[in-house]
Amino acid sequence: MKKLFVIKIGGNIIDDENQLSSFLNDFSKIKKNKILVHGGGKIATKISRQLGIEPKMIEGRRITDADTLKVMQMVYGGLINKNIVAQLQSRNCNAIGLSGADGNSILAKKRAPLSFGRGPILSDSVLCRRAGPKGLSGESIGLLPRGEVDYGFAGDIVKINEELFFSLLHTGVSPVIAPLTHDGKGQLLNTNADTMASAIAVSLSKLYEVNLIYCFEKSGVLKNIEDENSVIEKINSKEYEQLKGKRIIYKGMIPKLDNAFDAIKQGVKTVMVGHAMDLKKVISNKKTGTRLEL
Amino acid sequence: MKKLFVIKIGGNIIDDENQLSSFLNDFSKIKKNKILVHGGGKIATKISRQLGIEPKMIEGRRITDADTLKVMQMVYGGLINKNIVAQLQSRNCNAIGLSGADGNSILAKKRAPLSFGRGPILSDSVLCRRAGPKGLSGESIGLLPRGEVDYGFAGDIVKINEELFFSLLHTGVSPVIAPLTHDGKGQLLNTNADTMASAIAVSLSKLYEVNLIYCFEKSGVLKNIEDENSVIEKINSKEYEQLKGKRIIYKGMIPKLDNAFDAIKQGVKTVMVGHAMDLKKVISNKKTGTRLEL
Repeated sequence: MKKLFVIKIGGNIIDDENQLSSFLNDFSKIKKNKILVHGGGKIATKISRQLGIEPKMIEGRRITDADTLKVMQMVYGGLINKNIVAQLQSRNCNAIGLSGADGNSILAKKRAPLSFGRGPILSDSVLCRRAGPKGLSGESIGLLPRGEVDYGFAGDIVKINEELFFSLLHTGVSPVIAPLTHDGKGQLLNTNADTMASAIAVSLSKLYEVNLIYCFEKSGVLKNIEDENSVIEKINSKEYEQLKGKRIIYKGMIPKLDNAFDAIKQGVKTVMVGHAMDLKKVISNKKTGTRLEL
Repeated sequence: MKKLFVIKIGGNIIDDENQLSSFLNDFSKIKKNKILVHGGGKIATKISRQLGIEPKMIEGRRITDADTLKVMQMVYGGLINKNIVAQLQSRNCNAIGLSGADGNSILAKKRAPLSFGRGPILSDSVLCRRAGPKGLSGESIGLLPRGEVDYGFAGDIVKINEELFFSLLHTGVSPVIAPLTHDGKGQLLNTNADTMASAIAVSLSKLYEVNLIYCFEKSGVLKNIEDENSVIEKINSKEYEQLKGKRIIYKGMIPKLDNAFDAIKQGVKTVMVGHAMDLKKVISNKKTGTRLEL
């Protein structure tokens, strides 16, 4: 089986011109098949505000109303995606930018509003924190009557078009994926970039030996979030559950690692989490970042 | 030789949701190979203004400074392009959105600043009208000292990647082209959509029998711009020059028709100019619009 790298790059790196440039140098030098999945960054929030659209978040997840979706299309699909593609082209990497609609690459389903007070997983108190009027900006306002959280135009992935990815990779083209999907009925949707990277990696594991790498602004999964030297070298799913229980791993790392463990459970050969500036080391198998194990 | 339709759709149609939807219905029903090239529309100007960037024009041509280019990337590459692609997907047309950077589909060169007072084609007075401080908004201010007009990040096409277009079309994919090119050195550029359609049509004439169709909000080339019933059925390049001389054809129609005649002179099989709502008729060879001849 041929090797494939699926690499996700986070928003904080995208916001930093020098780090992005250095990362793209390293990415473009990967000789093997490669796919880049990018997130958003602060620029989406900035442009949103300039257009008079106040971003709405629930525990780090964006609520995508129609106006916010337009901003995402513009910033993720237009500004960031095309910049990355043009920069890769200048580095002799034949990149092609794709949203999920392009070539029907990633089909998704609009997330149904989440009822709270009835859900099997989340307790009322958590959900009320999440869903209350002030909860939209992440503040706790205590218990509220039952209701629902509508994530708006958020998409849960239904199908990855493996044939398209295979045929692009086969001709030496590197797909660069913006965190946008579509429902096949004309509606674009916002999908979390970590989830997209994981789903693409899982799906293409039928055809390739896939190495999934989450690149962000930290050196890996940290034992102590304040200490960049506290990188956990290896972590398996049991240890992960324990660290979550002890709240050593928390907040934004949880969805990222949930996605990462999902991938490894579903046949992705290796999954790494590390600093975007360490991509070169990861590719050349040098000791860096956190390696996830079953 | 297989048939290929290269169809350009103008901004006024893109701005009209119903007309765009109807046009996309007709486009998606074309059984043969097809490429769609889209322009901008008023939405770019609107978003530009919302972001505090006042559009600068010289005789209908946009001056693309760095901020304006970002808006174009966002609006053309993100908002409009992805909307069209998603809508085509819902009509069972497997579309893929491309800027010139994507897959290195269209390489261009940044236009050098145009010196006036020395140029071989344009007279001082015309150029002063174009280039003076107030001339930026199209007003005449009389003669001015010699100088230059810098179009900013405007790109003149150098090369169309025929292999990419062929391989996409061959697998049943319809490219949807945003009016953005790149210089191969990491810089995106703004390129006129009419010119892009013409250049793509010419380039692919080596591989296909190409039918180039310019779709806009008029029923064709009009003898009297006030009268939609004054469509000129056929026009050759000699008649075109005469009508230009008499100022029957003028303003925005000139660059459009220059591009159209360029295409026919360089081997494009047929070139039509007509109303976007008449696409179905054009495709089925019914009498409509203006047909250009050598």
